[in-house]
Amino acid sequence: MIFSSYYHTITVLYICFVWQIAMIILFGIFIRYDEESDAHWIEHRKHKNISSDIENDFYFRYPSFQDVHVMIFVGFGFLMTFLKRYSFGGVGFNFLIAAFGLQWALLMQGWFHSLDYTDGKIKIGIENLINADFCVAGCLIAYGAILGKVSPVQLMVLTLFGITLFAVEEFIILNLIHARDAGGSMVIHTFGAYYGLSISAMLYRPNLDQSSALHGSVYHSDVFAMIGTLYLWMFWPSFNSAITDHGDAQHRAAINTYLALAATVLTTMAISSLFQKHGKLDMVHIQNSTLAGGVAVGTAAEFMLMPYGSLIVGFCCGIISTLGYIYLTPFMEKYLKIQDTCGIHNLHGMPGVIGGIVGAITAAAASEAVYGQEGLINTFDFVGDFKDMVPSKQGGHQAAGICVAVCFGIGGGVIVGGILRLPIWGDPADDSCFDDEPYWELPEDEESIPPIVQYNNHMRNKDV
Amino acid sequence: MIFSSYYHTITVLYICFVWQIAMIILFGIFIRYDEESDAHWIEHRKHKNISSDIENDFYFRYPSFQDVHVMIFVGFGFLMTFLKRYSFGGVGFNFLIAAFGLQWALLMQGWFHSLDYTDGKIKIGIENLINADFCVAGCLIAYGAILGKVSPVQLMVLTLFGITLFAVEEFIILNLIHARDAGGSMVIHTFGAYYGLSISAMLYRPNLDQSSALHGSVYHSDVFAMIGTLYLWMFWPSFNSAITDHGDAQHRAAINTYLALAATVLTTMAISSLFQKHGKLDMVHIQNSTLAGGVAVGTAAEFMLMPYGSLIVGFCCGIISTLGYIYLTPFMEKYLKIQDTCGIHNLHGMPGVIGGIVGAITAAAASEAVYGQEGLINTFDFVGDFKDMVPSKQGGHQAAGICVAVCFGIGGGVIVGGILRLPIWGDPADDSCFDDEPYWELPEDEESIPPIVQYNNHMRNKDV
Amino acid sequence: MIFSSYYHTITVLYICFVWQIAMIILFGIFIRYDEESDAHWIEHRKHKNISSDIENDFYFRYPSFQDVHVMIFVGFGFLMTFLKRYSFGGVGFNFLIAAFGLQWALLMQGWFHSLDYTDGKIKIGIENLINADFCVAGCLIAYGAILGKVSPVQLMVLTLFGITLFAVEEFIILNLIHARDAGGSMVIHTFGAYYGLSISAMLYRPNLDQSSALHGSVYHSDVFAMIGTLYLWMFWPSFNSAITDHGDAQHRAAINTYLALAATVLTTMAISSLFQKHGKLDMVHIQNSTLAGGVAVGTAAEFMLMPYGSLIVGFCCGIISTLGYIYLTPFMEKYLKIQDTCGIHNLHGMPGVIGGIVGAITAAAASEAVYGQEGLINTFDFVGDFKDMVPSKQGGHQAAGICVAVCFGIGGGVIVGGILRLPIWGDPADDSCFDDEPYWELPEDEESIPPIVQYNNHMRNKDV
Repeated sequence: MIFSSYYHTITVLYICFVWQIAMIILFGIFIRYDEESDAHWIEHRKHKNISSDIENDFYFRYPSFQDVHVMIFVGFGFLMTFLKRYSFGGVGFNFLIAAFGLQWALLMQGWFHSLDYTDGKIKIGIENLINADFCVAGCLIAYGAILGKVSPVQLMVLTLFGITLFAVEEFIILNLIHARDAGGSMVIHTFGAYYGLSISAMLYRPNLDQSSALHGSVYHSDVFAMIGTLYLWMFWPSFNSAITDHGDAQHRAAINTYLALAATVLTTMAISSLFQKHGKLDMVHIQNSTLAGGVAVGTAAEFMLMPYGSLIVGFCCGIISTLGYIYLTPFMEKYLKIQDTCGIHNLHGMPGVIGGIVGAITAAAASEAVYGQEGLINTFDFVGDFKDMVPSKQGGHQAAGICVAVCFGIGGGVIVGGILRLPIWGDPADDSCFDDEPYWELPEDEESIPPIVQYNNHMRNKDV
Repeated sequence: MIFSSYYHTITVLYICFVWQIAMIILFGIFIRYDEESDAHWIEHRKHKNISSDIENDFYFRYPSFQDVHVMIFVGFGFLMTFLKRYSFGGVGFNFLIAAFGLQWALLMQGWFHSLDYTDGKIKIGIENLINADFCVAGCLIAYGAILGKVSPVQLMVLTLFGITLFAVEEFIILNLIHARDAGGSMVIHTFGAYYGLSISAMLYRPNLDQSSALHGSVYHSDVFAMIGTLYLWMFWPSFNSAITDHGDAQHRAAINTYLALAATVLTTMAISSLFQKHGKLDMVHIQNSTLAGGVAVGTAAEFMLMPYGSLIVGFCCGIISTLGYIYLTPFMEKYLKIQDTCGIHNLHGMPGVIGGIVGAITAAAASEAVYGQEGLINTFDFVGDFKDMVPSKQGGHQAAGICVAVCFGIGGGVIVGGILRLPIWGDPADDSCFDDEPYWELPEDEESIPPIVQYNNHMRNKDV
Repeated sequence: MIFSSYYHTITVLYICFVWQIAMIILFGIFIRYDEESDAHWIEHRKHKNISSDIENDFYFRYPSFQDVHVMIFVGFGFLMTFLKRYSFGGVGFNFLIAAFGLQWALLMQGWFHSLDYTDGKIKIGIENLINADFCVAGCLIAYGAILGKVSPVQLMVLTLFGITLFAVEEFIILNLIHARDAGGSMVIHTFGAYYGLSISAMLYRPNLDQSSALHGSVYHSDVFAMIGTLYLWMFWPSFNSAITDHGDAQHRAAINTYLALAATVLTTMAISSLFQKHGKLDMVHIQNSTLAGGVAVGTAAEFMLMPYGSLIVGFCCGIISTLGYIYLTPFMEKYLKIQDTCGIHNLHGMPGVIGGIVGAITAAAASEAVYGQEGLINTFDFVGDFKDMVPSKQGGHQAAGICVAVCFGIGGGVIVGGILRLPIWGDPADDSCFDDEPYWELPEDEESIPPIVQYNNHMRNKDV
């Protein structure tokens, strides 16, 4: 056992160090500032006849970037603190793999999307940072399925492969298939959910009930998780609009997401109350299903979904997601041998697929009457190689995107899950799951403050 | 009792579902995107000779909107987690009624302010979302007075009527009376506080001391509440400037609010320390009274209040609000039979009225010397029907606004409180107040983790 | 002892009141709105031919301001809640001294930087608010060294002198020496850390182990502290770019900081895991050392540090900072008699000095090839009196800046520490350190809810 521990230490150390050094070398070779963040911008600006320093894309993407950043680190991180004794792991490993993944994402996405062929360099700006955060989100979703059951080394392996798969899948869906996916219903949520579920299936633990004493929340850990929920909920309009085209598309994406999320809260509460004994609300539903509308409106957020359309999407997803927690998660665990700690299938999987379908329908139904001639071209980017595209065909391409996302998720997850089954990663024993103890120095319990010390402090306090 | 529980379930379910379906229908009939969020914007933009996609109001309102959004959901929500066993209800019901209310607010405010008479549709954009959040804030303030003493169904009824009253009152104050109220000292805070207090008076519980064991905080619930306090405090400059005119008015509103709030912190701490035994600080004051300056500077924030004027307002409100917690709240409970759980009279009621008065005085004292000729017209919107208005008269109109807000709050609260007294709403018994137990599935207590399991986990952990 | 308590009360009261009144008077004499926040702006705008209200600096600084604001109040505040029984003091006194300090900072910095010599007034706008927050950050860093060991009155004295020293030091470094320091590695972090450490050395408590029972965290207080960590980590790109020149410099500063922080997380985790028994992670390191990269990239963030350069800085600082917690802090406490509660030497001191050195090297190595001719002038502000400056000389000036910051920090800290040793400030006894009890009304413990009441509530609940 001591061997295992040292082994684990050295593995973590080795991966972090080697990886970070590799990143430095690759960044040194490949990554440079883009023209808006390079000191030559002043010359470039004059050359392009841009009148003012404030017409830098920084000012029109950075607030959204920071909202997304908060979702990734505080939103996902605190949402995963709900377990009574795995809060350190929830927020801490989320922090680790997000910081780890975003560097690799800048490279992988850069090669696909931001490579300057004149000098072979990737030119990065604020939009790349947003995309790196998006890319990381896919892996954090996958983490939700296996929360508490894996080691940090396994998480880093999951992230390394996950980012790589994500970048390829994204390139296929957005560039080759030319599907639109502003908020990533397909690219981020569907892929991330099925990737995580497949890994969880590969790592199935028949004796997980040995950890059942720790497989739940306590009062204050549920309140911590609500911090995550609320930040995800509030900033989801920024998520879905962050990389949309400037102007009306960003504006519309924010409105649609805001409305879908509001409707989801209502139906989540209703279903939660109906299906619990005595009509009580369940915190698991409030923490998770209230977010399903944001996922499901991701693809169509920039389209003319119409305000009532957004409400309908949110309405349905609150119902489906909550019912998923009540019926589907136990079913999947019992019959499909998929243990899904956070219920990502209900929060990201089903809503992601629904989001793809809504996107396909909305795209197929688009018309010049609703969008205007230029608006249609603008919204669906019917330019260049795709200038002859029509909405009905676009709908088919959108549907193809869903399939690619699901396939990459399941296929990638099975392969990566197989790798993670190798007995070399220091994963916790069945009776140590959902427990910070194996990986974290834990403080003594609060009760260990001897009451007599407290009393003495009180009595001898010179200020009293 | 089982009947009551089922009844309650079905009521919640019924209201949420019927309401959400009604919203979908009404949104389908009435609500469309405004010209800046519609796909036709590109044509509209060229038509209006707007040179660039970044001259969309989205970029100049959205960061403030997100700050306000955080105040509504995290600020109000976490401020209400301070009770030891009502944290789920505090943050969860806040979430429910905010999501519920903002949809109705979009409709109500839309009919009054954003109706396009050419096609009978309400055209919404980012400013409508901010206003909907503002409208909801009034009801969340009212919730503070009755925190822990009502059922979620009662809260939804409170919100439904509250939003309706708010929209009418706002229309009267801002459009008919032509009072200015950038940060809503009158429209939001005064109305919300007196609405909530009147309801609380109508729902007076003589035997509330049966719940006294739960009517207080524990150490960590007080820290949770500080999250709410700080987010309200930090983003209040965004609240007061969010819908102000672009340019100097927004800039000035943020500065004034920042300064008033800073002064309030100092005097709150001073008064709290002076009036407690042994000079100790009371968390209730720090959590609440430090915010009073933001309320009180709401109306005048966009005026030339001057930096020292803001400090004076903050200085006074810290004193008044803290003294209110020490003397007035117990007095109101004992003699006026008004039980005010969060002390909203001290945080929103008195500071709101003060804010209205400060606004009236500042407006009456405005002069061309201080504002400039165009600045005066701009700031007070002396155009159209009101182009002959003068500052002294504007001061009178401001004062009239306070009266309208108070009357709507008290009148509306008495009526709605009467409705809420009907014995059909599933409200908690006197000995179950301030308790999440009636409405939430609660996790087992932390102590229920058997020490032997923890020990075993430790011993058998394969990583040790 | 009763005398002491009353004395303490009256001191706090006296300082808060007198100070706030003095602020009102000084603001009345000195502080006015600047041209962008004054109602005359509409005239000024037409005069300067500015086409639109949205070309107000408010829109291009305010989102960054709010991020910085969150760092100051939630970031620093919650980072200091980690102690098991000093969370109120951590977040509460942080709130007090920040609100106290920012008013004085507006005046002190205003006299040096924003004085309008035509009328003797300080003209403030959004940039002044950011700078005031920055100025306060120096004092909050210093607070970290003495957390739990001083009274609020001592903190106010520390802040009063700290702000004053900061303003002078900043003027010398930025204006006289003409060093660049966008993110304040020298001006804020180095100064703040050595100021705090010197004060802590002057206030050395040989018998501090009498409070050792409270000198540590509990599970949930560590989770609270992670809120602070994450907000500091996420918004650090805003901190380092908030007052940088508009355009590419702000854009670049954000990218560099984002990258440096990501690398720091990896090496912090690696070193923490390597040096703990059984390879476990230590929350102290995760909470603090992960931020060191943001400090160390502060000065050079606006330069052409290059993405890989940022990663290298972050890489090194994660290692140095974590090793500092493991070896240097115990060494300093044992041999140098410096008790550093939060380890600010590891988070701000060493990384700050490294940041200064990185800035000096980057500046000295600057060339027209990398920056472009105009870019070089722009980035280093080689205009006016400094139009003949060259990069190599600028490197020397940067190095001089580090020395000034260290000297002001140590010198100021020794003097202020001497003042704080006077036995008149009501500081806690050695056995009452790290305890909220002397200064806060504490709620009863959670355990004091009698189980029978909970049971009865449950049984008699009319909803069940």
